[in-house]
Amino acid sequence: MTVNAAPVTAAVIVIGNEVLSGRTADANLPYLAKVLNDIGVSVREARIIPDDEAVIAETVNACRVAFDYVLTTGGIGPTHDDITAASIARAFSVPLERNPEAMRALEQHYRPEELNPARQKMADIPAGATLIDNPVSKAPGFQLDNVFVLPGVPVIMRAMFDGIRGRLRGGAPVLSRTIAAFTTEGAIAEGLGKIQAQNPDVDIGSYPFVRAGRFGVSLVARSPDAAALDRAADEIRDLIHAIGETPIEDEV
Amino acid sequence: MTVNAAPVTAAVIVIGNEVLSGRTADANLPYLAKVLNDIGVSVREARIIPDDEAVIAETVNACRVAFDYVLTTGGIGPTHDDITAASIARAFSVPLERNPEAMRALEQHYRPEELNPARQKMADIPAGATLIDNPVSKAPGFQLDNVFVLPGVPVIMRAMFDGIRGRLRGGAPVLSRTIAAFTTEGAIAEGLGKIQAQNPDVDIGSYPFVRAGRFGVSLVARSPDAAALDRAADEIRDLIHAIGETPIEDEV
Repeated sequence: MTVNAAPVTAAVIVIGNEVLSGRTADANLPYLAKVLNDIGVSVREARIIPDDEAVIAETVNACRVAFDYVLTTGGIGPTHDDITAASIARAFSVPLERNPEAMRALEQHYRPEELNPARQKMADIPAGATLIDNPVSKAPGFQLDNVFVLPGVPVIMRAMFDGIRGRLRGGAPVLSRTIAAFTTEGAIAEGLGKIQAQNPDVDIGSYPFVRAGRFGVSLVARSPDAAALDRAADEIRDLIHAIGETPIEDEV
Repeated sequence: MTVNAAPVTAAVIVIGNEVLSGRTADANLPYLAKVLNDIGVSVREARIIPDDEAVIAETVNACRVAFDYVLTTGGIGPTHDDITAASIARAFSVPLERNPEAMRALEQHYRPEELNPARQKMADIPAGATLIDNPVSKAPGFQLDNVFVLPGVPVIMRAMFDGIRGRLRGGAPVLSRTIAAFTTEGAIAEGLGKIQAQNPDVDIGSYPFVRAGRFGVSLVARSPDAAALDRAADEIRDLIHAIGETPIEDEV
């Protein structure tokens, strides 16, 4: 059954001191997790790391052997703290080279007097990489083997992801059903554990919430197998009825 | 000079399928990064990992030797997907035990008929751990060696962090100055790189923004050394004046 084929996995590496310092809340992981899932690629780990060449190289190397795909965000601009390309070159032990195709893209975007050495640095790409087109601000990302290097600015990252979607080969997308109830986790935990045990192909998560001052729990069932998901969802509804509550079917 | 003492480091491990699936945007890392920095502890890496015992144990073991402190969030409730305590016990190769002090806290919170086996599970704590008081919903977190285990619900996590702040020994807090300008990274990158090179004790980051339709760049200088920071900040102001722009001193 194709839905039981080995899942296609990804790691997301967020590069940036500003995320680790708490200055900037990362918005790229939630986005990438959703769009990757839509094409059947499951994000299994994310790492947020500093602008440090050795750390970036080590992290990329650890992740590229452990996951089918690695997507990095951040650190591909013109300033001194934009060191992702050099770090990826180090990870792959290849030279960092001025890329003619990237230079042409920059030359079309900047007037000659604007294309100073710092901006030219954005055309330095690890040898052997395939460029990722940047329709917003022209400085490209790149792909090397299973590693895709994207910028940190969300609007640009999203536009560039659209361009690489077709390069990624996913499996069956994970589908989900969310059923909520005004109850507590402790009141349903035993029954929910039994449903999880009886539905090993479905991943069931339990997430408490407060809505209009009332405690509730959102139960999220996830699986690439729609029929298995429907069975588990029915059992969750039965459980909620059994404790005298009403299933809430809208996303909470 | 105390500000040059070895920095005290931390890793944050966010445990939860709901963050990796993009369903929930993590709010705990930005909070912890800031409050830890206030007490002189610098978050150097964050990992977001699934509800998987082997992955949690491996990640905790990798981080607890690499950083001075490890803080985990998520997975300490009553449901089947709350497996952090068991995973930490596995990481430390110690038994998971019903903790009498944790049971007493639960008994004071729940009526006897409410304290079902699922809720009692919240008193299962790795042997040798010190409890972390939960003033909101009573189910405790715990500390084992340099690993602090906190819940995922932000309001509870924050209340529990307040209780452990005094257990953490930090260094000099990292101070920051933010100076912005309506310019582009490419226009200031060369000058900024020189300022970074001349101020090795200051970490300078460059972050583009758009405000009221105009492109700008926020320059953030960070250091535990206030005098070094002031020197770097003055040089950044001079750079902005030199390209004909006006430094903006409010946080952007």
